[in-house]
Amino acid sequence: MSVSRELTRVGWIGTGVMGASMARHLLAAGYPMTVHTRTREKAADLESRNARWADSPAEVAAECDTTFAIVGFPADVRDTFLGAEGALAGANPGSLLVDMTTSEPSLAVEIAEAAAAKGIGAVDAPVSGGDVGARNATLSIMIGGADDDVVRVWPLLEILGNTLVHAGGPGAGQHTKMVNQILIATGMIGVSEALLYAQQAGLDLDKTLEAVSGGAAGSWSLSNYGPRMLEGDFAPGFFVDHFVKDMGIALDEAGTMRLSTPGLALAHQLYVALQAQGGGRSGTQALLLALARLSDFEWSRSR
Amino acid sequence: MSVSRELTRVGWIGTGVMGASMARHLLAAGYPMTVHTRTREKAADLESRNARWADSPAEVAAECDTTFAIVGFPADVRDTFLGAEGALAGANPGSLLVDMTTSEPSLAVEIAEAAAAKGIGAVDAPVSGGDVGARNATLSIMIGGADDDVVRVWPLLEILGNTLVHAGGPGAGQHTKMVNQILIATGMIGVSEALLYAQQAGLDLDKTLEAVSGGAAGSWSLSNYGPRMLEGDFAPGFFVDHFVKDMGIALDEAGTMRLSTPGLALAHQLYVALQAQGGGRSGTQALLLALARLSDFEWSRSR
Repeated sequence: MSVSRELTRVGWIGTGVMGASMARHLLAAGYPMTVHTRTREKAADLESRNARWADSPAEVAAECDTTFAIVGFPADVRDTFLGAEGALAGANPGSLLVDMTTSEPSLAVEIAEAAAAKGIGAVDAPVSGGDVGARNATLSIMIGGADDDVVRVWPLLEILGNTLVHAGGPGAGQHTKMVNQILIATGMIGVSEALLYAQQAGLDLDKTLEAVSGGAAGSWSLSNYGPRMLEGDFAPGFFVDHFVKDMGIALDEAGTMRLSTPGLALAHQLYVALQAQGGGRSGTQALLLALARLSDFEWSRSR
Repeated sequence: MSVSRELTRVGWIGTGVMGASMARHLLAAGYPMTVHTRTREKAADLESRNARWADSPAEVAAECDTTFAIVGFPADVRDTFLGAEGALAGANPGSLLVDMTTSEPSLAVEIAEAAAAKGIGAVDAPVSGGDVGARNATLSIMIGGADDDVVRVWPLLEILGNTLVHAGGPGAGQHTKMVNQILIATGMIGVSEALLYAQQAGLDLDKTLEAVSGGAAGSWSLSNYGPRMLEGDFAPGFFVDHFVKDMGIALDEAGTMRLSTPGLALAHQLYVALQAQGGGRSGTQALLLALARLSDFEWSRSR
């Protein structure tokens, strides 16, 4: 598989915590880039690295072979791709649209169908790995789309992550991401309740974490978020607000499929409580604080 | 730390899946052993390896320096240690009692206090790692007890496991095990719901498992039970009935500590449903089947 860099101009829409790092990797790899984002100053760093500014997603897509977006909510995804000034309105036949936002599987299918009607390819490629994964280009990327389209975008995605899985047709990347989020959601309840139990029982928290991390109770969340909880560090790697969005999508999809997911539903509600308590811009590990508050209990390690 | 094997006769009470393997390791290491269990034929293998039979826990303890037990439920622990024919009734001053059953922290404290009143040491040392860990002597052992007692039993525990943690005084081993079980309980809901979602969404299950196992959604349960679920293998490594017991203890303890644990409570109730459906002697990974039944949904990989 070879890519002619002279021909491949890359479009980038969305320069949040994730998107800014990812776009920089593509620039560093030598791809000419056109960028758009809602607040232009957030693209200043990319512009200083020779990315060209465009005033709308449509203008980005009009001058690019492959246009990526990583924005916030499904409504933003809809605007970005299907709006009057959206990427699809400007894209040329034969070009490719790639949504890396975690968004609705059904919307990914809708975008792919609308694109196909104009001879344009579309791929959904949500990621896992957070701000650190974006910065270090170690993201896991879950890809849905037609084989031809996925083959075309593969070399670009390889610059952004180190685990790429082509899960199936349009929407399959989003569904795989939902599987990922269901696992994290329920797991975070367990990590939170376990550490609160340990503190209430008077156990040494560091020793307890060490004792249970290596065995059958071990998980990535326990090893990575457990120490932050013990430090009282609830700063965002991944925002609660975004996680609530993801869980809402998963619950809707599961409902549509007539699948009851009580663990996911509980996690969603506990995170909604955390939002209500003002924790929407905290990191997902702040679930611990919502569960502590439920029992009117002070987490002693809070900063 | 040295142990004089001439002086150390080891008592062993309880020869279930876990206990039988563990006792064999101590015999293989050269320790003379006296054994008792409810059904004598289950001790036949140990007797054939020169373990001496005794008719009650009291008789075992009367002739041993250190007496271990790994039995079923807290009521069995109470009988084994505190009953009229229990180990404490026969134990000599200066000897040591070690409960490796997963049981109530408060009962561990009660046993330790009753033992101390007679000049006898007592340690709670529940384990994690299941039948495989018992067989391969790779158990994690969570230890509660006075420093002197823990120092004395340490070399024996090192023969049974490879991760030993002295968590604190009497009961602290049991509390640490509860932390472990809380993590596993909620995690298993996530693994089950995630795989059911994947099947309903039409994803390739093997590919999905691979895609999410290595990243932020990864866990020991996912890597070890996920493949068994995909194989339709619900045979017990760890019985549902025993797990329900453990979760019941953890819920009681949390309630006593005025700590609300909604994730643990949900897991407990889903496992109670699994028992009601006849799954008490299945492995804990059979939670998937209870969640499938909740949605009147057939798990396609069922054997």
